[in-house]
Amino acid sequence: VTTEPTIAWRDGALELIDQTRLPAELVSLRLTAVPDVIDAIKRLAVRGAPAIGVAGAYGVALAAAADDPRTDPGAFRAAVAALRSARPTAVNLARMVDRVAAAAEAAAAPGAGTGAAGSPADAALAEAHRVRDEEREASRAMGERGADLVLDLVGRTPVRAMTICNTGGLATVERGTALAVIQTLHERGVLAEAIAMETRPLLQGARLTAWELGRMGAPHRLAVDGAGPFLLARGAADVVLIGADRVAANGDTANKIGSYSLALGAARAGVPFLVVAPESTVDVATASGADIEIEDRGPAEVVAWGGVATAPPGTAAVNPAFDVTPVDLITALVTDRRVVRFDQGHTLT
Amino acid sequence: VTTEPTIAWRDGALELIDQTRLPAELVSLRLTAVPDVIDAIKRLAVRGAPAIGVAGAYGVALAAAADDPRTDPGAFRAAVAALRSARPTAVNLARMVDRVAAAAEAAAAPGAGTGAAGSPADAALAEAHRVRDEEREASRAMGERGADLVLDLVGRTPVRAMTICNTGGLATVERGTALAVIQTLHERGVLAEAIAMETRPLLQGARLTAWELGRMGAPHRLAVDGAGPFLLARGAADVVLIGADRVAANGDTANKIGSYSLALGAARAGVPFLVVAPESTVDVATASGADIEIEDRGPAEVVAWGGVATAPPGTAAVNPAFDVTPVDLITALVTDRRVVRFDQGHTLT
Repeated sequence: VTTEPTIAWRDGALELIDQTRLPAELVSLRLTAVPDVIDAIKRLAVRGAPAIGVAGAYGVALAAAADDPRTDPGAFRAAVAALRSARPTAVNLARMVDRVAAAAEAAAAPGAGTGAAGSPADAALAEAHRVRDEEREASRAMGERGADLVLDLVGRTPVRAMTICNTGGLATVERGTALAVIQTLHERGVLAEAIAMETRPLLQGARLTAWELGRMGAPHRLAVDGAGPFLLARGAADVVLIGADRVAANGDTANKIGSYSLALGAARAGVPFLVVAPESTVDVATASGADIEIEDRGPAEVVAWGGVATAPPGTAAVNPAFDVTPVDLITALVTDRRVVRFDQGHTLT
Repeated sequence: VTTEPTIAWRDGALELIDQTRLPAELVSLRLTAVPDVIDAIKRLAVRGAPAIGVAGAYGVALAAAADDPRTDPGAFRAAVAALRSARPTAVNLARMVDRVAAAAEAAAAPGAGTGAAGSPADAALAEAHRVRDEEREASRAMGERGADLVLDLVGRTPVRAMTICNTGGLATVERGTALAVIQTLHERGVLAEAIAMETRPLLQGARLTAWELGRMGAPHRLAVDGAGPFLLARGAADVVLIGADRVAANGDTANKIGSYSLALGAARAGVPFLVVAPESTVDVATASGADIEIEDRGPAEVVAWGGVATAPPGTAAVNPAFDVTPVDLITALVTDRRVVRFDQGHTLT
């Protein structure tokens, strides 16, 4: 959908669409140093679990170029550790950072010489490119597989789909996860409407998903988050599609705050509730949702919007950025490699 | 809590706190004509089902003073009809308008003479005062009865209470409904914390409830609406308290959009979910929630906040102002006259 990719590597720099500026402006950031990548991740200039993973991967490439692990392994590893912990909830970041760091370390190992992988920096960049290419291919596969499943579950067309947060091209490299399914339905001519939840506090649904749906020409309406379960109760959507920041071994899924509320509403209304996420988001090392760390992003995001205060000065807030949907509320998980029908008793492992 | 009452009659005019200006400014409107009262109701300068009912009652008093039902019954009745339909969901408005109009009509009836009730305008004003006094007394009764029930259900102190929208003094004449219960718990020294949902799109929780909790000195935090069910799942609150715009004969309850989501979350978490509303909100003429008209307030409230766009220009929205919580998710209804324990199989009628 986005005519320029969300994340690109160009002339030794990581280029990112600055998502904090959308929908008002389409502006790219050019990042050449690890602290800038960490800052972009922390302030959500780049967001969405797969996109954060790719940004982290390129961040390691920048780290290996700045601090060669052969000559300054301490500095390289410190940069990797800092990248790895820029955000805690999405598993993709740690996983992709570790993967690219391992490629750099392997190239730096005493016997590695100057083999096919080249220098640690070259090896890291090559691995980061592979991460990017795999995410791009995963989006396409999820879109196709998810659209097939939606049509199978809903059993009639056209389909009305509800989603939350932004899981489109902006959250990945291209096309996305849950929104890739909606895009595929639209491209197949069977999408009646997408209802995008606005996704407080940072309004990724209003700012980003509405923008992407507009660009793909898909019919859509926006709704406040609190309206989701009621709209489902009144039959406004045939399916709910969400992305994921981490899927635990038992299928419990961490995703943007508000997802669990939609899952409760979908279960009550008998509407299928699908999680769409690449295999890189599945974390079998996390047993269940109870073990997932949930980031609290502090009160500032809640008590003001666009510089306008929404609450009296000094109001405290509790601001969990994610919630956990228990697997019993999830109809199925769609990944780039498989469909796991939790509703039929299937399991991830 | 509010040192000046939300609604007052002073020197032939209806004075209202303009709630659209809070929390930035505490400003009163002075209304002397029916169209101004209708405008204030429509643009939510006055809001909250009981407060709207009292405002409508005084609106009829203004109508009877402007168009005497003895000499111009058509104009009087047109004004009454316009007041009655200023907002469709809350039953209090129609009910209180009808009650005061009936008092005026009775005083205008051929045999009424100039008895104790005086002129139709005098009779209407006297009846509007009674409506106000009853709402004030109802708030106090609901607060005491609700606090007793909360302590009984929770079984330990101090209590952490979650609420949505504004149901405090600003929503009534004084003290409120659900927030009156929280205030009473605070006055009894057993409130650990109130969690106020911000209540998109118009942020009554952030703007008004946080302001009222601050003025009463009660510990509180704000949260985005989507976080409610997850906070309940993680044990952040011991009870959920909401107001009501209309309670149907079977107990189904229409209230601010987002209430149903909290009810689903409370049921899943095993947390008591209480509706606190005066008897004037109970509408036995409405069989169930399916019969309640839900107002859609259009896209403007959703796609911008404080003049700052939150979505691309022209984005469509679905904006139900209320939702309906089915009675099976409601532990009990607390009114000014009784507690109805739906969880024990009790019924309203």
